[in-house]
Amino acid sequence: MKKHNFNAGPSILPQEVIERAARAIVDFNGSGLSLLSISHRTKDFEAVVAEADALFRELLNIPDNYKIFYVGGGASTLFYEVPANFLAKKAGYVNTGVWSKKAIKEAKRYGEIEVLATSEDKNFTYIPKGFAIPEDLDYLHITTNNTIYGTEYHEDLSSPVPLVADMSSDILSRPVDISKYAMIYGGAQKNLAPAGVVFAIIREDMLDKQVRDLPSMVSFRTHVENNSMYNTPPVFPIYVLMETLRWLKSIGGVEEIYRRNREKAALLYAEIDRNPLFRGTVAKEDRSLMNICFVMEEGYEELAPEFLEFAKSRGMVGIKGHRLVGGFRASCYNALPRESVEALVACMQEFEKEHAK
Amino acid sequence: MKKHNFNAGPSILPQEVIERAARAIVDFNGSGLSLLSISHRTKDFEAVVAEADALFRELLNIPDNYKIFYVGGGASTLFYEVPANFLAKKAGYVNTGVWSKKAIKEAKRYGEIEVLATSEDKNFTYIPKGFAIPEDLDYLHITTNNTIYGTEYHEDLSSPVPLVADMSSDILSRPVDISKYAMIYGGAQKNLAPAGVVFAIIREDMLDKQVRDLPSMVSFRTHVENNSMYNTPPVFPIYVLMETLRWLKSIGGVEEIYRRNREKAALLYAEIDRNPLFRGTVAKEDRSLMNICFVMEEGYEELAPEFLEFAKSRGMVGIKGHRLVGGFRASCYNALPRESVEALVACMQEFEKEHAK
Repeated sequence: MKKHNFNAGPSILPQEVIERAARAIVDFNGSGLSLLSISHRTKDFEAVVAEADALFRELLNIPDNYKIFYVGGGASTLFYEVPANFLAKKAGYVNTGVWSKKAIKEAKRYGEIEVLATSEDKNFTYIPKGFAIPEDLDYLHITTNNTIYGTEYHEDLSSPVPLVADMSSDILSRPVDISKYAMIYGGAQKNLAPAGVVFAIIREDMLDKQVRDLPSMVSFRTHVENNSMYNTPPVFPIYVLMETLRWLKSIGGVEEIYRRNREKAALLYAEIDRNPLFRGTVAKEDRSLMNICFVMEEGYEELAPEFLEFAKSRGMVGIKGHRLVGGFRASCYNALPRESVEALVACMQEFEKEHAK
Repeated sequence: MKKHNFNAGPSILPQEVIERAARAIVDFNGSGLSLLSISHRTKDFEAVVAEADALFRELLNIPDNYKIFYVGGGASTLFYEVPANFLAKKAGYVNTGVWSKKAIKEAKRYGEIEVLATSEDKNFTYIPKGFAIPEDLDYLHITTNNTIYGTEYHEDLSSPVPLVADMSSDILSRPVDISKYAMIYGGAQKNLAPAGVVFAIIREDMLDKQVRDLPSMVSFRTHVENNSMYNTPPVFPIYVLMETLRWLKSIGGVEEIYRRNREKAALLYAEIDRNPLFRGTVAKEDRSLMNICFVMEEGYEELAPEFLEFAKSRGMVGIKGHRLVGGFRASCYNALPRESVEALVACMQEFEKEHAK
């Protein structure tokens, strides 16, 4: 049976990327050696990093005064490294859920944190808007897509202070005006690579804003100055990231994937809104294109476990909602084909026929 | 042409591990999903972590009062995390080369560092012995194998204070009396896995010795308490690590690999000592089984580039010595077959015939 991979993360990668990764593990570039057994300082791997850099720049229109680097670990590592590098006195955070809260918790060790806005009053089912941004902040931190709740910023925020964004789960899924951000970072295990590597896009002037002496590995300068080679980088995830960027370019780039993502999301949200058994959990204007959350409609709540089983028996993988929201979550990352969304919609319609009152 | 992979790291992994990794990327455990596209919280991956833990314990006879955890990053991450966790006032370090120096540099941010012994006077070509260990140290840090210089501790040190060892490049290559160590850690990219994961073996009581409030990701407690799942772990490197441990068990465990490693090293060192064109660079009693360093003998120095080309033309990969030592380095990690050492020895003998005066 064909599986439809709606995992929230680590999550689906393009099939051709997976196949190329498997081949590179057996024999990298016809070298007779496995990609897993080569030095990160070989020309062949340096070429991988250089190509990833060039593709990232091209696909996201990254201006020349921004640097890209990769490090091992995850976004959780950056939750403390961002304030360690930049928080001298006070930073602003927008609280849009669990990942924002974790970032806030880690930042409090380094200075004063002002939570400028929060959607906690409604269990994070919307993105706060229209809040004031004081001009005395060292930076403002946002989480652009919230995997657990299925909310997403659909516009790049304008900020009078340096804007730092965790884009772990929507990087490269839509066009972004990079110039509005001082730094963008994220774990790569959604739209880019397997787990184990963090990407960061940082405006050069931010490197001069390091506010304290830091361990070499914690200072962003170290990784920029050493071109992500200060220590042995996570070679394999970076290789897969480069292959994913190649794939994205080959299908038409960010504009095309954005079109596909909107189309997939529109299909599924339309079914959620139409089907009397289900309802969406998120304010319509803030619905994520990446993580689509829904629950059983009132009166059908007891059918939730049955729908999960039903969907599973038809090949749906990973659609159980996070325990903080309940219900269902269909993660529709870049690599998820439209057919998978169609299969889920068909599944919901079939379930409706069996159970609608 | 068959390649003989003497890379210093990332380095050779067992061929069957590479093949299993490639298969898991295409289809993990017959799930119909790639290992790169599954959640780290699935039962199948939790089983991988549990099996790695059990095998690690079995292969190294790790006592029950030790915990094992894995995190993204590299040994360089632990260079600051070890002092961040344990250094309240003063720690002792033994300086056996570049990696020790880096560890010392990062530790100085957190307290007083006493370098108890160093082999810098002879370019780190020996392991210092017989130095006094003050009893008022928070811990003593050593680097058990020095990849760049080819030196290695051949006995577990007895220390009156907690002994912390970076075993990045000789973990599982020889039996170790774990009970003599408070903590063992290392980048896994030599004898265990591809780059991107750090392993740590820590005595439980050390978790209570955290001396300061730390970011969640920096505190060793976090990773032990969350069974390496506080954040998304580097799934693929951990899987490969587990497969490497399986392989090691299948061939007879640490005793057997130690026998093979001694045999391989003996073969190559014997040739270095016999062949009039070459000489070893390290004090004989401290010669590493993992990284075998040698240079052209006096009078033959100008032949070095030619020997490199000669060896390369016969399939030898990665035998150029580190720039701090010069000459040649043959890294003979666990997965390097005896035939590769024999091929290198044959190469040296052939070169001797052409060039001996």
